[in-house]
Amino acid sequence: MEKNDVLLTLDYNHLVAEVLGPEIGLTSADLSEVKKSLAKAVKDFEARRREGLLPFADLPQDAALPKTCRKLAAEVRKKFDDALVLGIGGSALGPSAVFTALRPLNHNALPADKRGWPRLHVADNVDPEGFGALLDGLDPSKTFVNVISKSGATAETMSQFMIVADRFQKALGPEGFKERLLVTTDPQNGVLRRLVEENGWTALPIPPGVGGRFSVLTAVGLAPLALAGVDVAGLLTGARRAQEAFDRTGAASQAALFAGLNWLLTVKKGRGSLVMMPYADALGRVADWFGQLWNESLGKAKKLDGSPAGAGQTSIKALGATDQHSQLQLYMEGPQDKTICFLGTEAFRAKLSIPKIFKKFNELGYLGGHSLGELLNNERLGTAKALAESGRPNFSLTMPKVGPETVGFLLQTLMLATVLSGTLYGVDPLDQPGVELGKKFTYGLMGRAGFEEMTERYDRLKPSKKFMVESSPLG
Amino acid sequence: MEKNDVLLTLDYNHLVAEVLGPEIGLTSADLSEVKKSLAKAVKDFEARRREGLLPFADLPQDAALPKTCRKLAAEVRKKFDDALVLGIGGSALGPSAVFTALRPLNHNALPADKRGWPRLHVADNVDPEGFGALLDGLDPSKTFVNVISKSGATAETMSQFMIVADRFQKALGPEGFKERLLVTTDPQNGVLRRLVEENGWTALPIPPGVGGRFSVLTAVGLAPLALAGVDVAGLLTGARRAQEAFDRTGAASQAALFAGLNWLLTVKKGRGSLVMMPYADALGRVADWFGQLWNESLGKAKKLDGSPAGAGQTSIKALGATDQHSQLQLYMEGPQDKTICFLGTEAFRAKLSIPKIFKKFNELGYLGGHSLGELLNNERLGTAKALAESGRPNFSLTMPKVGPETVGFLLQTLMLATVLSGTLYGVDPLDQPGVELGKKFTYGLMGRAGFEEMTERYDRLKPSKKFMVESSPLG
Repeated sequence: MEKNDVLLTLDYNHLVAEVLGPEIGLTSADLSEVKKSLAKAVKDFEARRREGLLPFADLPQDAALPKTCRKLAAEVRKKFDDALVLGIGGSALGPSAVFTALRPLNHNALPADKRGWPRLHVADNVDPEGFGALLDGLDPSKTFVNVISKSGATAETMSQFMIVADRFQKALGPEGFKERLLVTTDPQNGVLRRLVEENGWTALPIPPGVGGRFSVLTAVGLAPLALAGVDVAGLLTGARRAQEAFDRTGAASQAALFAGLNWLLTVKKGRGSLVMMPYADALGRVADWFGQLWNESLGKAKKLDGSPAGAGQTSIKALGATDQHSQLQLYMEGPQDKTICFLGTEAFRAKLSIPKIFKKFNELGYLGGHSLGELLNNERLGTAKALAESGRPNFSLTMPKVGPETVGFLLQTLMLATVLSGTLYGVDPLDQPGVELGKKFTYGLMGRAGFEEMTERYDRLKPSKKFMVESSPLG
Repeated sequence: MEKNDVLLTLDYNHLVAEVLGPEIGLTSADLSEVKKSLAKAVKDFEARRREGLLPFADLPQDAALPKTCRKLAAEVRKKFDDALVLGIGGSALGPSAVFTALRPLNHNALPADKRGWPRLHVADNVDPEGFGALLDGLDPSKTFVNVISKSGATAETMSQFMIVADRFQKALGPEGFKERLLVTTDPQNGVLRRLVEENGWTALPIPPGVGGRFSVLTAVGLAPLALAGVDVAGLLTGARRAQEAFDRTGAASQAALFAGLNWLLTVKKGRGSLVMMPYADALGRVADWFGQLWNESLGKAKKLDGSPAGAGQTSIKALGATDQHSQLQLYMEGPQDKTICFLGTEAFRAKLSIPKIFKKFNELGYLGGHSLGELLNNERLGTAKALAESGRPNFSLTMPKVGPETVGFLLQTLMLATVLSGTLYGVDPLDQPGVELGKKFTYGLMGRAGFEEMTERYDRLKPSKKFMVESSPLG
C-alpha cells in the first residue's frame, strides 16, 4: 500500500436534490446545515478524547498488541488444528467480520497445508444443537480456546466456557487445559479475571473504556484473527490511516460525512432504516458487525440531557447480488423509510470467467466472456441506478480491493461515524442500558440468588389463554 | 405425530391493550375490526384458489413428488458425496431454511458414515471468491448438480451454471455431466427447458403459478432437501395440516391472525418493521426465507386498483440469544416502529448440561445444573417479558420441537398469512415488478443485445465529483 492510495470512496450522488429532487434529496442548504452540526460534533469528539473517554480512537497506534498476538499465534499454529472463540455480541461480530473478509471464504474447509493456520470457530450462541454440533467436531487435544468476556459474567459465554472447561479438564487435566487457553477480559475486574489469577491462565486485557462494539481492534479481535493468520498489523495500519484522515480533516472526513448524511436522512427525511448492502461475500459479516455498532449505539430512549430521544436509525443487512432476489422489490416500491448503503470492492481476489457457451440463446449468450466479478459489480451499479431513478436514496462506499488496510480503514471510519452520530442525535453512543431488564428476568427464571423478585415480577403479567391460539387439532 | 398434537402456538398476549395499554396495544375493537377484514380476505382467497390462481395451497396434497424426490435421492446417495444447488432468491432460501432446520447443524462437516447423505451446498451468489472457493472444494466426479431457475434466464444462476457445465463437461464429458445433473425449471417455457429438451437432461417442473418465494414445497425445495436426507414427506404432512386448519377455521386460523395482527400494527399503529427472531440455530434460516416471502410480497408501489400503496412491512432477521447482544438495545429503547416475533421451540434435539463448577462465584454458580436449552428458552421468555413491560409489542410462535411436521406447518402458515396480508393491504402478493429496472441496467452494462438504450440511460445520470469523497491521502 502506497501512502497516497485511496482506501475508500464515499459517493453520495444518489442522495442529493440534484438527482432525486428537493423533496426526497438532500439540498445544498441541508448539507451546509449539517456541516455546522458536524463541526460541533468533531469538537465534542476531540474534547472527549482528550478526557480519555474515547480510547478506541488511539487503538490503531498500538504497535505492541499485534506483535503479542502474532507471537501467540505462531506458537498456537505449531500445536493446534482448531481455534475456538467463545464470545457474543462485539466479542464475536468483530473477529467474525474480519476473519470472513481477510481469510479465504473456505478457510475452515481447506486442508491443513493450504490453510496454514488453525481453523477458526466463533461460538456466539447457547443453542445446544448448534454448540453441541460444533464441540462434537473438535478434538480437545488439538484445539486452542479463547474465551472473551469483559465482565466475566456474560451468561451465554460463561455457560459455554463452563462446558468447555469441564470437558477439556476431564480430557487433558488442568495443565492441559491451561496450555490451550487464552482469556480476554477486563485487566482488573470481574470473575473471569479472578479465575485467571487463581489458575495462572494466560490472559490479554480489554482496555477500560472500550465497549464490545468498539473492541475489534483490541485483543478481542486481534488475538483470534492472528490465530487464523490474518495480517493484524495491516488491519491496524488501515485503521490508523482512517483515524489520521479524521484527525486532519474533521467535519470534512468520510466518517463525518457518513454520520451527517444518515442523520439528515433520518431526522429531516424520515428515513429510519439504513440498509447496509455489501456486494462481496467477504464483506457480508461486516454488515452484521456494523448492525450492532450502529443500532446499539444510537437506539436510545433518552438524550444526554435526559429528554426523550425517540430517534436512532435501524441498520438492516442485505447481501448483493443475492438479496436483489429477496429484498430489492421492497426497497424499490415499499415505504419511503429506507436509505441503501452499497458496500463494494472494485477488484476481487479471485477471477472466475463465464465461458462462451450457449451462444445461440440471447438470454445467456451475453454473459459469456465476462467474469463473475464484472457481473457482480454491474449488478451493484445497475441496482444503485435503478433505485436512484425511482427516487430511492442510496450511496456507496467502495474500496479498491478487500485487504487488511482497506478493511481496517472502513472499520475505524464507521466507528468514528457512530460516535459522531451519537452527538448529532444527542445520545450516549457508548452505553446500552436497555439490555439489563431482559437479563434480570432471565436471572430470575434461572434461579440466580438475589433475583427472586424478578421471578415474582415475571409471574405478575400472566398470559391469558384468550390471546393464545393453538394449531387446530384435526378432530 | 398424533393427529391432535399441537404443532404451533401463537401467543399474542404482549400485543394487546390489556398488557400494553390502549395507545400501543391492540384493543378489542381493533381485533373485532380486523376479523371482519380477515373474513373478506379469506373469501377472496377461496375465490382465487377456485380460479386456480393460488396453486401453492394445493402443493401439500401432492403425494407423487416426495416419492419422486426420494427415489432420485436414493440413487444420488449411492454415487455422490456432494450435492450442489445453483439458485437464488426463493430457489436458495427455501431449501437452505429447511436443510438448516431439519439436518444436523454440522451436516456438511460430518464424516460420510455419520452423515449418511451427500453434503448440500446452496450457491446463491456470483461472488468469484465465494463461488470459486466452493467449486475448488468439489470433485466433479463425486458431485451432483441441481440448477434451479424458473425462467432459465436468471443471470446469477445461469452464470454459475455455465461455469459448472463447462467444467464438468471438460472433466467428465457431456454424458458424465448429464448423469450428475437435475434441472428444475418451468415445464414448458424458457431457455433452460429448451436446453433440457436438446440434451435429454433430467428435469423436474416448477408448477406454473407458483413463484419463487412460494416454491419451497415444489421440486425447488423438495429435490435438494431429499438429496440431503430430509424427510420431505413429513414436511408436506405438516404443511397439509396447516392448510387443512386454514381451510377449516379461516379467519380464526393462526395464518389469518398472523396477517391481521401485523396489518393492524403496521397500518393502525405505525409499526413498519417486523423483527423475526428465532431462538434456535436450526430456525435461523427460516427467518431469511420469511424475509423474502413477506417483504417481496407486500412491498408494493401500487394497490390492485392502481392507487398508491405506500404500505408494506419490513421483516428484519435477528437471532436469539445472540442478537440480544447487538439489537435488543434498539428494540427496547429505539423508535417505536417495530414488532418483535419470537420464534421458539419448547424442546431441543440435543442436550448439553452446564456443569456445576465455579460454584463459589455468585455470577456463575447459578448456571451449573441447567441445560443450555433451558438457558436459551429462559432468555427468550425474559426478553419477551422485558419488551412487554417496556411497552414494546411482541408475540410468539412456538413449536413443541423442530421437526418435519412442525416446520412444514410453520412454512405453510406463513405463506397463507402472506397471501391474506396482500388482500388486507390491497396489493398483489404474487408479483415483483420493482426488480426489473435494475436487471435492465445490468443487462445494458453487460452488453446484452437489445439493451443498448439502457446503457445510454445509465450514462445520462452522471455522477458529480462534488458528491464523491475519497479517503484523504496523507500528503
